[in-house]
Amino acid sequence: MVQRKGLCGGSADDPVMSVDLAFGDEELLPAVAQDADSGEVLMVAYVTREALERSRETGEAHYYSRSREELWHKGGSSGHIQRIEEIRVDCDGDAILYIVEQEGGACHTGYGSCFYRTIEGEVVGEAVFDPDAVYE
Amino acid sequence: MVQRKGLCGGSADDPVMSVDLAFGDEELLPAVAQDADSGEVLMVAYVTREALERSRETGEAHYYSRSREELWHKGGSSGHIQRIEEIRVDCDGDAILYIVEQEGGACHTGYGSCFYRTIEGEVVGEAVFDPDAVYE
Repeated sequence: MVQRKGLCGGSADDPVMSVDLAFGDEELLPAVAQDADSGEVLMVAYVTREALERSRETGEAHYYSRSREELWHKGGSSGHIQRIEEIRVDCDGDAILYIVEQEGGACHTGYGSCFYRTIEGEVVGEAVFDPDAVYE
Repeated sequence: MVQRKGLCGGSADDPVMSVDLAFGDEELLPAVAQDADSGEVLMVAYVTREALERSRETGEAHYYSRSREELWHKGGSSGHIQRIEEIRVDCDGDAILYIVEQEGGACHTGYGSCFYRTIEGEVVGEAVFDPDAVYE
């Protein structure tokens, strides 16, 4: 089930990327953002090919907003951008990992990470900014 | 867009879980597994409610295999189980984070993490076992 062809050769569909990506029918892949310094998992969102290409071109994380149905430059309005340190791809080419330097906090609730709660509802994350001061 | 109701109260649909989860039409959520010791992002897969409940009950990570269309006990055949240390939920209740103690390696290619390649195809991960010795 490993796409071994992806381990070596480039992809005719993706001249920019050397690894085959298994975009499904929705043309979206899940993307995890991880803090380069702390290793904290910051968020999970989705990328299109365009979002990935914009991330590589600009060095800042781009996603695709499924609710707004548009390319999403993370931090474009809040200033809480994510500077890309490295982009990784998983074995099957169907998930992306952005290793980033996070400006401010990743979560629009004011927490550093969107994963600030356990499944039991206990808050375990750290609040790093006041969302009312950032979002109108 | 934050489900603020989920921050405090329980969910009538989920007596076991205190946080509202936004399972979509497919009844699947992406789940990230992170190594509790190294902080390494190990893999991204998907969970159903049943997979989440089994993870909580057994203390070992369960997912839903989209290709096999069945509940998937990670490591059930290879022995490379993931002992759950904590399960977290993101702000919108639509992504899961398993913080785990990984037995062996997470990736069936033999690497410790499925994210062993950059998007340029460079191998940056560490091989931790011989897949031919584990999988028949």
